[in-house]
Amino acid sequence: MNRRLVLRRRPKAGAAIDDADFALETAPLPEPGEGELLVRVCWLGFDPAQRGWLDDAPSYLPPVEIGAVIRASAVGQVVASRNPAFPAGALVSGMFGWQEHALSDGTGLVRRVPDDVPPTAALGVLGTPGLAAYFGMLSVGQPQAGDVVLISAAAGATGSVAGQLAKLAGARTIGIAGGPEKCRWVTEVAGFDAVIDYKREDVATRIGALAPDGLDIYYDNVGGAILDAALGHLAVGARVVLCGAISTRFAVGVEPPGIKNLPALIIKRARMEGVVIVDYQDRFDEARTQLADWLRAGKLLTADDVQHGDLEQAPGTLRRLFEGRNLGKQLLQIAAPS
Amino acid sequence: MNRRLVLRRRPKAGAAIDDADFALETAPLPEPGEGELLVRVCWLGFDPAQRGWLDDAPSYLPPVEIGAVIRASAVGQVVASRNPAFPAGALVSGMFGWQEHALSDGTGLVRRVPDDVPPTAALGVLGTPGLAAYFGMLSVGQPQAGDVVLISAAAGATGSVAGQLAKLAGARTIGIAGGPEKCRWVTEVAGFDAVIDYKREDVATRIGALAPDGLDIYYDNVGGAILDAALGHLAVGARVVLCGAISTRFAVGVEPPGIKNLPALIIKRARMEGVVIVDYQDRFDEARTQLADWLRAGKLLTADDVQHGDLEQAPGTLRRLFEGRNLGKQLLQIAAPS
Repeated sequence: MNRRLVLRRRPKAGAAIDDADFALETAPLPEPGEGELLVRVCWLGFDPAQRGWLDDAPSYLPPVEIGAVIRASAVGQVVASRNPAFPAGALVSGMFGWQEHALSDGTGLVRRVPDDVPPTAALGVLGTPGLAAYFGMLSVGQPQAGDVVLISAAAGATGSVAGQLAKLAGARTIGIAGGPEKCRWVTEVAGFDAVIDYKREDVATRIGALAPDGLDIYYDNVGGAILDAALGHLAVGARVVLCGAISTRFAVGVEPPGIKNLPALIIKRARMEGVVIVDYQDRFDEARTQLADWLRAGKLLTADDVQHGDLEQAPGTLRRLFEGRNLGKQLLQIAAPS
Repeated sequence: MNRRLVLRRRPKAGAAIDDADFALETAPLPEPGEGELLVRVCWLGFDPAQRGWLDDAPSYLPPVEIGAVIRASAVGQVVASRNPAFPAGALVSGMFGWQEHALSDGTGLVRRVPDDVPPTAALGVLGTPGLAAYFGMLSVGQPQAGDVVLISAAAGATGSVAGQLAKLAGARTIGIAGGPEKCRWVTEVAGFDAVIDYKREDVATRIGALAPDGLDIYYDNVGGAILDAALGHLAVGARVVLCGAISTRFAVGVEPPGIKNLPALIIKRARMEGVVIVDYQDRFDEARTQLADWLRAGKLLTADDVQHGDLEQAPGTLRRLFEGRNLGKQLLQIAAPS
């Protein structure tokens, strides 16, 4: 039998997602037809964007329908296959969703996981977060040697890669993260030049001290007050990459503050631009090849935050992102590959 | 004798400028030395940016010093000259400031006003507002045929030109202005396809009705609530040109609202960019030639809002901009050319 979590009702605005927003269903395990493969899901990947897909609001992807399996990227193992490109035993990644098994015809987003990288890299540095960092930092931000680059959520799956890519381009990197454990990781493992602990320090004051000549790039994953603080410290010609707004879009119990410092974009002739990776699909192979090379060469260091348990823990694991609890890519392992 | 207004004290934050912020001085009329010319100032030009120059805050130009003549663009007539490029009788434009006479060595910002355009065009469509519209709309906004383009302060010196430039590029244009007189002018004279009266209508609702498929460009002169409303109606790939923030930067007596809709820049993969014309100095001649051609051909229609009086009326005339009272370029005529 296949167990899966479907959307029972849309999450309440201004509240955290509730386990009761989801329903557990059991269905017979499907048999792969000609050209199809059956995947046993091993690791579910979690991303703030998933929360947005649960709302009935216009976005770059259609909302998850009521009664449909929750959309999610995952890595699994092929357990039965009538598709020679994905033989039984192969590790594959794709939008398999919150379920224990997924049937696929191999088209679209299903990919073999390279043998020479950790399988969960397909969800992190070689998945959506890594691609967002790659295109957001390199194509939108365009770091130059000597640039001063600030990255929020720097201990997260996207921010940690974005900062390391800027560093590889010769920039000086400042991360923002919450709490001593994450901050230590940002500088000591991910190699940022400096870090600001937003839970203990005044972010605007610290940006001013660490970047007295202003920021050439701010890579924003959080929005809200931290975005506003960064806007107050832009250099002339700065680029502000908007990749996420986790502090405001799904804020719980508080009205998030509005942004006051937009006139800085005029005074500093700065550019602010949103990035969504769906616009770069024709360059995914280029990006994955480059990111995998850096990963193998030890030039990109990543962290996985792996929870272990059952499918039923998926809603709680998604909540961890909005509670700022994850260090690196948030994963839930529900099975081990053989 | 020369009469001039100098900065006595910096205007109070959160308050309108006060006549007492300025002091009237009288000084002997200077004699032009070799290469110099003396200008009798005829029309003073007013721009919201002037207010910012009175603050001791980092900007793209240094602040006006206490005791210095208030920086302002103006058109005047050469009354004495030892510079053959600017003979006596010529009409010239430049940053002559709030004074009745200005001495210049002819370098920098002083230009002959073309004979075949109205002299005040040098302060409007061929001056800072027209150049801001030209580079902001054409270089940053980049209108394409069929684009839907929204412009705030559409009855102002910059917005009216920005809208007409988008229309010349084949776009459909929607203006925002305050009150029936300005709104009528925006559609009936400046030729916008539609107009929204922000004083009488709900701006967000009207944008949604007039641009059901979203805005390809929003040219913002005001910031604040109107900017937020426009961000809620962007099309994929939209460009938001930030040219001014008159509703928030010098708001009087109220705390301006923060901007809530920035996540729309992510969902719509949109770009927001500030424009300041000092970055385009090497293209001023190109822009002025093109704008003057369109002006002579009747393809650009402009309005001057001319107050008549003494130099002492300059502070009050500047206040008109922040009270939303001007239709077209705000001018104060303090003398007539002979």
